Formats: sequence, structure tokens, C-alpha cells
Amino acid sequence: MESSFPEVLKDTSRLCIHTITTKPWSIEIAVKQYALNGVRGITVWRDALEGRKPAEVRRLIEDAKLEVVSLCRGGFFPSTDKKKREEAIEDNKKAIDEAAEIGAPVVVLVCGSDCRQSLSESRKQIEDGIVAVGDYAGKNGVRLAIEPLHPMYADTRSAVNTLKQANDICEKLNLPNVGVAVDVYHIWWEPDLEREIARCGEMGRIFAFHVCDWKSPTMDLLLDRGLMGEGCIPVRQIRAMVEEAGFRGFIEVEIFSTLYWSMDQNRLLDKILEAYYKHT
Amino acid sequence: MESSFPEVLKDTSRLCIHTITTKPWSIEIAVKQYALNGVRGITVWRDALEGRKPAEVRRLIEDAKLEVVSLCRGGFFPSTDKKKREEAIEDNKKAIDEAAEIGAPVVVLVCGSDCRQSLSESRKQIEDGIVAVGDYAGKNGVRLAIEPLHPMYADTRSAVNTLKQANDICEKLNLPNVGVAVDVYHIWWEPDLEREIARCGEMGRIFAFHVCDWKSPTMDLLLDRGLMGEGCIPVRQIRAMVEEAGFRGFIEVEIFSTLYWSMDQNRLLDKILEAYYKHT
Repeated sequence: MESSFPEVLKDTSRLCIHTITTKPWSIEIAVKQYALNGVRGITVWRDALEGRKPAEVRRLIEDAKLEVVSLCRGGFFPSTDKKKREEAIEDNKKAIDEAAEIGAPVVVLVCGSDCRQSLSESRKQIEDGIVAVGDYAGKNGVRLAIEPLHPMYADTRSAVNTLKQANDICEKLNLPNVGVAVDVYHIWWEPDLEREIARCGEMGRIFAFHVCDWKSPTMDLLLDRGLMGEGCIPVRQIRAMVEEAGFRGFIEVEIFSTLYWSMDQNRLLDKILEAYYKHT
Repeated sequence: MESSFPEVLKDTSRLCIHTITTKPWSIEIAVKQYALNGVRGITVWRDALEGRKPAEVRRLIEDAKLEVVSLCRGGFFPSTDKKKREEAIEDNKKAIDEAAEIGAPVVVLVCGSDCRQSLSESRKQIEDGIVAVGDYAGKNGVRLAIEPLHPMYADTRSAVNTLKQANDICEKLNLPNVGVAVDVYHIWWEPDLEREIARCGEMGRIFAFHVCDWKSPTMDLLLDRGLMGEGCIPVRQIRAMVEEAGFRGFIEVEIFSTLYWSMDQNRLLDKILEAYYKHT
């Protein structure tokens, strides 16, 4: 491991923050505070766009010299109800439109799952959904990043639960603009992690890299993520793996946490920067 | 799937309950009430033995015409501290002694994980630990069942998180008395589930089969398991898979639930029987 250990991060040129991480802030405040603190990338969650024109948000971000890294999130394809599946396709196209409008090169896909049907059926519907919007995304210059989600979300948020599955889908569909968002929270435990990251890199399909930490103990299935260094995920080693696999993009801090959302968000930003330098 | 669907369970001849499922009951009451309700198997958790002589518990169970299916639990091998690892070996030998004394043919291994070290190190220590007690178990007529645990327990309870990993360990160690405890709660989401169950069966290593359900939503990482049929796990289909793979042993109901522990335990037993016939 030591030999491929990545270089220490000496500046914030690759630091991106997800708007959800500082959820109490409006996107206007987030952009301003990120820029003031030297953050260079922003991943925009769709709820942050509500009541705003995408073109205006784009200008806001450009004026602050930030780069839009991704739009979060599309996906949620599976349903036992055909009408719902069609609505999901339309909503994904809308997300692709928004991505193009704000200048996001990637839409992250949280693929979805419907626990009223088998996982294999949900998995099939996910592939069908990606195929149904793949070309549309391509024509709009947008890439789609399948985010494998932790198996504890298999009943609701995603039936794609390992990096291997995401890689298999990419390989099978073989669409030029469909790849993977590697999030350490979801995949850190995988026995074949290093091999699957290498495989994803060989296919040229690592489209995004998300970081946070798994607190031990974790008190909530959704809203108790930690800052890098606070838990048991070897964040730096996993960064070494994705960089060994050719990834040179932004390192995106994505943390859902009732604890951190209840804190002064400027203080949280300080803590993110500290965790970024020390543990990422 | 339909073609290999298992036969409907028409009696309780294969029903086993884990003492932890009815945690508010002493083992004396549990044995009496299980027997009164036609339950034929009991898996004894070590805390239920506290303050009692194993031989007396054995007689209690035999007198009630119940069969001891397993002792729960050994394992917890990994630690950064060598002394702790040695203590774990000793404690596993003690569990093997207790199993032999109460007539349990199997000790279930919750293998452990130490989040101060890498998962690969914990995984190596698990293999070393199993090797260190394998012969001792064999000489005492006891089999060891590695229970792969859900990835959400990778930081604390087990670094063995998929059935594939458990199978790989069995294959690698190739000890005659080391196999797997298949628990639907932990492995239902696995993409290669059917194949890995078949593989485990081909090796003759399905030593136990545990059932419950994954509630959607699940409110707690540990203590919110559901009764079969209450959640999204295709319990009957997974039973079909293990039986297709040759398993004919007890079907063990293992539920940790603050909700069910707070209920009248006779009423819970009624619900278990109903869930067993309808959804298992």
C-alpha cells in the first residue's frame, strides 16, 4: 500500500463540496463561503436549485470562479408501476437538462430500488432506465455516473450495491458516457475493492470520487456520516487506488449529518478543510 | 424461481428459535414455551447460560424433547492487541466446551473486526483464529459456522461481509468441520446469492440457516429486525436456494428487536409461528 500512497494534498485545487453537506446554507451563501475558503469545486443538489433559474445559478458559480463538478441526483428508475418508471425517465431527462444548463458535466445516479419486487427485477429496470436516457444525456454533453450504494440501502435507494455491479453494468451497456461515482462510504468494505477500482479505471469510467467517513459506532442509517478521519474508512488509501487507476478529478466531500447540519456552517467548513488536508 | 420453490412448511418439525429472539424470557421459560408451541429446535445464546451449569441446561432441553441446533456465538477474533487475540482464542475454546456440554453440534462464529486496523488485516486474523480453534472443535465433535455479516457491521462485528468471502475462507482452510451459517438478513442483497449458496452446498458446508426480515424502512442498525414477511427479503426463495443446495436442517428464527422484546413473549411466539407458515 505504502508504495502507491498518494501525494499529500497541499492546496484546495481539487476540493469540491456537495451543497447537501452544508444543507442549512442557500446555494448563494454556499457559493460565497466555499469561494472565500478556497474551495474550487461544487456539486449541486437539485433541491438547491429550487425557485431559481439554472442559468442564474450557473452565472453565480462562474462569477465566484467555482467549477460545477456534478449535479445530484438522477436515478430512482425501478418501480412495479410502469407509469412511475416512465415518470422517472422524464425526471432524469429534466435532471440532464438542468445539468447542461448549470454546466455540470456529470449527473450522479442513485439508481433506486422498489422493495415490492425482486432485486433482480429492480436491477433490470435500472439498466433499462439508463439505456433510455443515455443518448439524451450524450446529446446534451452530460455523462451519467452510477453510484453503487451501500447494501443497507438495497431496499429503497439503490439495487446497485457494489462497485463490481456498477462496473458490470458499464461493461454490459458499453455507452461512452456512462460511468461510476466511487463513494468511499458505500464501497470501503468490499473485499475486491482494489481490483474493481482498477477495473473501473481501465474502462476509463471513474467519473467522480466522493469522500466522508463511517463513524464507529454509526447511530443512523442515513444521517450520521463522519468527516474524513473520524471513522474507519481508509480514505487516503482509497484515494491512492482511484489515482493509481488514473483518476485526477475533484475530491468531493459529501456528508449527510444531522450533527453537522446543526453546527455553525462556517465552523463545519473549517473542519472539512482540516479533514481534507489531514485525512484525505 | 417458481420451479425450485420449496414445499410449504406444514408442521414445526424444522422450526428452531434462538433464545435471543425471546430475550425477556429465561432459558427455563423459553424451553417450556417453545415446547408447548411445538417448536422442535433451540439455538442457545451464551448469555442464556449465565449462572447455570451447561449439563443442567442440556437436561432441561432434552426433557422438553427439544434439539439444540447451535450455540451462539464464538468469533470476534481480530484485534490490534495480540493479548486480546489470544484471549479470543481461549474464549472460543470455552464456547466449544459449552457447545459440547449442552449438546450443540455447531458454534456460530460472528467473526469480529477491529476498526483500528485494515479490513484485510482483520480478515487475516479471522482466518488465523479459525485455524487456531478448528482442531479443538473437531476433537470435541463441534462444527464451526462462519456467519457472513451485513457490510453495515464491517467496522465492529465482522469483516466477513459476503457469502462469497465465507465460502472462500472455507475453501482455503479446507477444514472438515468449518462451514457457513446462512442468515437471510445479512446476505439477501448479494448479486451472486444463488450461485454462492449453490457453491456452499456443493462443498457440503451449509451448517445453519437463519431467518427474519429486513423492514423497510429500518430504524436501527442492530435492533429493528422484522418477522418473516414483514420486510423485503424473499425468505421463501432463499429457503428454496438452500434446499436446492442440499440443506435439510432446522430453520432458525433469529430476531433482534426492541419492538418485539417489549411485547408479551407468548404473543410474539404466536406471530413467529404465523410468519413461519405464511412467509418461510
